[in-house]
Amino acid sequence: MILGLSDDITDDQKTHIRNTLLDMGCFVRETEDAEQSLICALGNNNLDVELLKSLTGVQTVTPIVTPFKLVSRQWHPADTLVPIGDVLVGGERIVIIAGPCAVESREQALTIAREVKRYGAVVFRGGAFKPRTSPYSFQGLEEEGLKILAEVRKQTGLPVVTEITSVAQADIMMKYVDAVQVGARNMQNFELLKCVGRMGKPVILKRGLAATIEEWLMSAEYIMSEGNDRIILCERGIRTFEPYTRNTLDLSAIPVLKKTHPFAGADRSQPRHGYS
Amino acid sequence: MILGLSDDITDDQKTHIRNTLLDMGCFVRETEDAEQSLICALGNNNLDVELLKSLTGVQTVTPIVTPFKLVSRQWHPADTLVPIGDVLVGGERIVIIAGPCAVESREQALTIAREVKRYGAVVFRGGAFKPRTSPYSFQGLEEEGLKILAEVRKQTGLPVVTEITSVAQADIMMKYVDAVQVGARNMQNFELLKCVGRMGKPVILKRGLAATIEEWLMSAEYIMSEGNDRIILCERGIRTFEPYTRNTLDLSAIPVLKKTHPFAGADRSQPRHGYS
Amino acid sequence: MILGLSDDITDDQKTHIRNTLLDMGCFVRETEDAEQSLICALGNNNLDVELLKSLTGVQTVTPIVTPFKLVSRQWHPADTLVPIGDVLVGGERIVIIAGPCAVESREQALTIAREVKRYGAVVFRGGAFKPRTSPYSFQGLEEEGLKILAEVRKQTGLPVVTEITSVAQADIMMKYVDAVQVGARNMQNFELLKCVGRMGKPVILKRGLAATIEEWLMSAEYIMSEGNDRIILCERGIRTFEPYTRNTLDLSAIPVLKKTHPFAGADRSQPRHGYS
Amino acid sequence: MILGLSDDITDDQKTHIRNTLLDMGCFVRETEDAEQSLICALGNNNLDVELLKSLTGVQTVTPIVTPFKLVSRQWHPADTLVPIGDVLVGGERIVIIAGPCAVESREQALTIAREVKRYGAVVFRGGAFKPRTSPYSFQGLEEEGLKILAEVRKQTGLPVVTEITSVAQADIMMKYVDAVQVGARNMQNFELLKCVGRMGKPVILKRGLAATIEEWLMSAEYIMSEGNDRIILCERGIRTFEPYTRNTLDLSAIPVLKKTHPFAGADRSQPRHGYS
Repeated sequence: MILGLSDDITDDQKTHIRNTLLDMGCFVRETEDAEQSLICALGNNNLDVELLKSLTGVQTVTPIVTPFKLVSRQWHPADTLVPIGDVLVGGERIVIIAGPCAVESREQALTIAREVKRYGAVVFRGGAFKPRTSPYSFQGLEEEGLKILAEVRKQTGLPVVTEITSVAQADIMMKYVDAVQVGARNMQNFELLKCVGRMGKPVILKRGLAATIEEWLMSAEYIMSEGNDRIILCERGIRTFEPYTRNTLDLSAIPVLKKTHPFAGADRSQPRHGYS
Repeated sequence: MILGLSDDITDDQKTHIRNTLLDMGCFVRETEDAEQSLICALGNNNLDVELLKSLTGVQTVTPIVTPFKLVSRQWHPADTLVPIGDVLVGGERIVIIAGPCAVESREQALTIAREVKRYGAVVFRGGAFKPRTSPYSFQGLEEEGLKILAEVRKQTGLPVVTEITSVAQADIMMKYVDAVQVGARNMQNFELLKCVGRMGKPVILKRGLAATIEEWLMSAEYIMSEGNDRIILCERGIRTFEPYTRNTLDLSAIPVLKKTHPFAGADRSQPRHGYS
Repeated sequence: MILGLSDDITDDQKTHIRNTLLDMGCFVRETEDAEQSLICALGNNNLDVELLKSLTGVQTVTPIVTPFKLVSRQWHPADTLVPIGDVLVGGERIVIIAGPCAVESREQALTIAREVKRYGAVVFRGGAFKPRTSPYSFQGLEEEGLKILAEVRKQTGLPVVTEITSVAQADIMMKYVDAVQVGARNMQNFELLKCVGRMGKPVILKRGLAATIEEWLMSAEYIMSEGNDRIILCERGIRTFEPYTRNTLDLSAIPVLKKTHPFAGADRSQPRHGYS
Repeated sequence: MILGLSDDITDDQKTHIRNTLLDMGCFVRETEDAEQSLICALGNNNLDVELLKSLTGVQTVTPIVTPFKLVSRQWHPADTLVPIGDVLVGGERIVIIAGPCAVESREQALTIAREVKRYGAVVFRGGAFKPRTSPYSFQGLEEEGLKILAEVRKQTGLPVVTEITSVAQADIMMKYVDAVQVGARNMQNFELLKCVGRMGKPVILKRGLAATIEEWLMSAEYIMSEGNDRIILCERGIRTFEPYTRNTLDLSAIPVLKKTHPFAGADRSQPRHGYS
């Protein structure tokens, strides 16, 4: 439920509204939209709209029609710009993030980083903790790999991003990298989502192999509900019956997301919650 | 199996080769490739390569490595240009085919045709025989609809295409339209495929809802095996678990097809049979 | 829309009701249910219920809530028994239908038929017209195969069933076999469905590779709308991402169908239209 | 690679073999099979078979043909019995595990536990940590829920199982429950798999929504590679296009698994590695 507040609301009135919502068992979020102060009340589906409308300082009460709330354009109509280091994702510019699957050595990482930079990449990515199907495959250089990533940034000026696979890696991730990536297999690892929500770093959230668009946005909601709205959604292909290609890129997901989630580049002329 | 013939082969030698292959139970096709005369022998997987090589006039004997044969770039390396009326599909130009789902009346069809022409469409399409999920839905104007399509062509100059749903419609299709379309639900209706193969008209072959790329090309092979190589493959989305979109466009199928099937516009710089 | 008629309705009143519905553009079907005469009006979604209720002889007017109408248990609450020769499908007895993929010779068919009969099969099946992915694969013995099937029936006493792949085969199918089978690839070949609807023979309708249960029942509706209610639904596995098995048997479809479609063996104690 | 050892091998010889394999970068596992001592060398795909054969005490050297190794019947041909409390899973008896989705209160859990026990359940399950699609949904009673589960076991005698969603829960899980469950969404949360591998408690490993059978077995391999072989595979349905049912139960996965993974009840008369 989104409460639009009147311009002349006092701090005391605002505190009273907030406390009333907390007493009703709600999660509460606030924002200063371009035109109006807003309060978002989440997690209670049985709010008494008439009661909320009667609170001093409340001008409008609007339900959020989608299961994802903070992620919806209703709550945040403007496009979102996510900074990774000094690179802004979501503006006019197409941002290319490139690098090897796994960081294997200082030399390998630096060589590739210089090469992808030459070809236009502006962010470097490389895996230090690798989620492998087999326990006997190379699992990554771990902290050593993160140090190499930091070295790459220093040498090339490229901000760096790497996959986080465990809550236990949060501290060293904070230390070495500019953004973290949540892999397809962990898209519904809710403990990890809450963790990256609390980290506050930009998050590249990859779509799960068999995740619907709605489930994907609900995973973004987990991150936002912990206070982190620097989310980049990464469509990386879904699993289908087709054996000739490894994954099936779901290109049509992009316009659906643009209507829904306020990441940058969205076509603002289109209706915003028009999917059904 | 592709037999490359020597430049100085005589007609008698060619006839002997052909008869030898027919005796072995093969289907036989011939072509004049840019550089060499070729004979394709199909339908017998146990050909004696040494025997074929020993035939006078045979220079090379090369197996076709894919299950689709005439459709493969091995048999026909050059890009294919398919003419619909005076519009060439497969060249540099992007061809837009547009029109209503069903032809409902002369006025509706003409109005839409003039409109889509204004926006750049160069071929008009509209359904006269509609394959409906429900038997109680409007099944199309049938021959009356085809007459309207012919009228649209006369009035607007746009060539017209419509869906064929039954072998029984072949004669009137020949009379009224410039190209026929085989719908997703009929992609493996082999009787219909053979029929459009014999008709010789350009065919737009839509991919089945759950058809693999290989099955799709095998359906094209059915059409080509009857002598018709004017085939346009139409990727129209496959069925997946995602409910927000009606179908999932499989964009990655396009480069796979370009390597495989010689439709026009294929990137000739790429390896041709590189999928596995 | 189902109209329940009063017990003392006259023939003239019934004719008047029927004509009124036909004038409204409806398809009309009648049945003598255990307790009441019923008329089913199909194909017009905007019927005036009050007007229908006001017709003399009409007691009740009930909408059919599913997109499939004649197929629903609302129209035909009782279980359906489908006879193939003297074998009743849909009763207490589990009916085993067995035989080779393709009829290859008289001897092959007879040998297998005698063997499967020994192991409990009560209907023999074998393909005479084979829908093959490749045009160069064996396409079946065609009419010769049907004659062999008739011979099998004569020698073993087993009724015989074979796949129909084209409307053109209808006449010889009528002559030689006890039931026809519509293959997965032809489940939405509506011309063929209408044809088997008119043939009146028992039909084994296989589920399409990517057909939803609803689409499958709509295909059954096509057959019933032409007057043939001797339909056996065959769940043969759907297409998924799993490569270890050829198809994924959708076992859960069975209880869904039992609630919906009145084939025999349905659990009558369950709610009938309970899926959503 | 499986090394079969001779009956009269000395401890020193065994140590030498083991050290040789460790020097080659292998993970090493040992077992006393019914007939022979075996050493399994994992994680190095380029082992010198001739060198291994030449080691004193080595009788046979056999490659494991599947990507999953410890999980394969090659390594462990016998059926596996997994005890949950005093209930043996994998024997002749069908074991029913039942209970509510979430533990909501002491009274709710006890009431349901007594009821399901009356109907034949022998293990009780209930969620204390709930992986919810929405961050605003009830997330479970957490440790309080685990205490209630322990109380249920005390009152009813039923062993208890609950879902583990985070490595951080391992210690309290050890304290309160008899078995843990890894949910479908966490099937490839490799950190969690390693953790339950180290816990040693029986694990119910649910199949991921879009996991192939092979990926599922690779996840089991993760658990076994950490030393825990008390794994129960739970087929809970996969994600398909069908909207009438929530998931599509992949019944055919069961016989495939029985050939592969040595859980109890497997049909030993069947070929063991026969899938392809």
